[in-house]
Amino acid sequence: MSAAPETDEIAAILTTRLGEVATRFEQALVNDLAPVNALIRHVERYRGKMLRPTLVLTTGIAVREGMMASPTIDQQLNALAAVVEMIHMSTLVHDDVLDEADLRRGGATINSLRGNETAVMLGDFLISSSFHLCSSVGEPWLNVALGEMTTQLCAGEIMQLSHRGNLTMTDTTYFEIVRRKTGVLAGACCGLAARLAGASNEVAESLRLYGEELGIAFQIQDDVLDLVGEEQIVGKTLGIDLRKGKYTLPIVVHLTRCSPLERVKTIAVIEACDVEALITLVESTGSLTAARERARQLVAHAKGRLAVLPESGARQMLVVIADAAIERAF
Amino acid sequence: MSAAPETDEIAAILTTRLGEVATRFEQALVNDLAPVNALIRHVERYRGKMLRPTLVLTTGIAVREGMMASPTIDQQLNALAAVVEMIHMSTLVHDDVLDEADLRRGGATINSLRGNETAVMLGDFLISSSFHLCSSVGEPWLNVALGEMTTQLCAGEIMQLSHRGNLTMTDTTYFEIVRRKTGVLAGACCGLAARLAGASNEVAESLRLYGEELGIAFQIQDDVLDLVGEEQIVGKTLGIDLRKGKYTLPIVVHLTRCSPLERVKTIAVIEACDVEALITLVESTGSLTAARERARQLVAHAKGRLAVLPESGARQMLVVIADAAIERAF
Repeated sequence: MSAAPETDEIAAILTTRLGEVATRFEQALVNDLAPVNALIRHVERYRGKMLRPTLVLTTGIAVREGMMASPTIDQQLNALAAVVEMIHMSTLVHDDVLDEADLRRGGATINSLRGNETAVMLGDFLISSSFHLCSSVGEPWLNVALGEMTTQLCAGEIMQLSHRGNLTMTDTTYFEIVRRKTGVLAGACCGLAARLAGASNEVAESLRLYGEELGIAFQIQDDVLDLVGEEQIVGKTLGIDLRKGKYTLPIVVHLTRCSPLERVKTIAVIEACDVEALITLVESTGSLTAARERARQLVAHAKGRLAVLPESGARQMLVVIADAAIERAF
Repeated sequence: MSAAPETDEIAAILTTRLGEVATRFEQALVNDLAPVNALIRHVERYRGKMLRPTLVLTTGIAVREGMMASPTIDQQLNALAAVVEMIHMSTLVHDDVLDEADLRRGGATINSLRGNETAVMLGDFLISSSFHLCSSVGEPWLNVALGEMTTQLCAGEIMQLSHRGNLTMTDTTYFEIVRRKTGVLAGACCGLAARLAGASNEVAESLRLYGEELGIAFQIQDDVLDLVGEEQIVGKTLGIDLRKGKYTLPIVVHLTRCSPLERVKTIAVIEACDVEALITLVESTGSLTAARERARQLVAHAKGRLAVLPESGARQMLVVIADAAIERAF
């Protein structure tokens, strides 16, 4: 993730700290039951970019620039980093249940029913463990804030499900869903890390907004890649959102821009799940470009929020992370 | 639930307090999104006996017998009562997802896929809201205890799934699963209510054990009713545990008691889901009686735990609740 010499030092610190977070994560999930441990080992494969823990740690370090070192705060930040990764992982596990259901509807291979059931319970176990770990940080306001955040996240998922297959969804609705589903967690990573690190309310709020805007931009990039990414590079089945009736930003924008005739054509290719034909249509109204532009604007806004921080390698790293969110091909 | 004049007064108090809990419950789940509110209204139909809130309130009142009234503690107990009901309801919602999956396997009517997906998210919303409400009580130890409890509960569900279809399960394993799945929540209702009400550690631990033993006895009664209850009175499809490969106590005991030949017969009737033939076999080894006897012993133990409390109508009510757990036909 390092792109310039000034971020090399912070990148090295992050590597060490992320290792500590991974240990904390594993320790918090150890269970006295063998079947639970087997599942946990399996789910740890889901750990990918560790983006959310990275946001927690980098924000914390950036806020503490020039302050006295505090092992207590470092430990609290490590715990929060493990907590947000656990919450993220629980959403992945439960999303998998939802996705499996749809792939079954599409006729593709399905997991056995035992697989689905265990996934529901494993997701619950992860949510529960994340709250338990969070309680152990010893900051009651953190529990309230985290409970509020996960409630918003679930409400966002329910909102998305209620708009599934809705071809008249506005981009306002799209952004409200994505803000809740993806924005609030990334916002909490930065905002809560800032508060733990001792930032003023004003600074913490700016950093929360940095995270939220970054999260939304990240989701738009996912949307774009789901349509025009290369399957082997992205590493997952593409066009899946389409088959699930989750219309992503390029499609939402396209449907508000196109003529009635193009609209009929678009609905037909959506129903046929013809991704190639859909790309051609979406590009004809410049909607893919518009989605990319929207993500760029969000990243520019997010980077602007960082002005509340003193200059440092960590602040620079937050800039690098923001840029990477929309430059990635996977 | 009142069975004697001495419990009439407490029954009236409980009616008022349970009304306050229901209001607290509803307020905590109000959301700014219409689709979420619609689901919440739907799920409130699931509220049945309100057994868990009743345990919280009755234990709290019993512990405070003879102490000065405390509106603060009453409010905290009401909140805890709403929290445990929310946790219970989230497990019902997620169990429904699991059950629908199995009914589908059995060929019965299934909910649409959207139903399953929304149920997963709604359960998550309820879990999340319960933690949020719990954080608002302002007692950090309560969050830690509740996180620990729900983690155990999920681990118990996973343990049960891993033993699905296991015809060599011992009764030790059965009791460990049921303790975690049903016992710990009922135990937490009483143990945590006692701590909130100002009980000593020793008294709180006795009451936790009262709840845990009562919860296990309650589950055994469910097991018995799943086999020999009357469908119209129980109000749900019977024999469902059998079809799901969840072997209940009468069956577990029978399989450890019967001869090799009877074992072969038993497995055949289980595979055929022939409930009538299974009842005959299970009764031939006295295993239904043994399961009932085990539940009776647990209730007797549970009632013995109440000796730590001063005599009161509330303590008497806890005796009535314990007896009712195994005397009910639904």
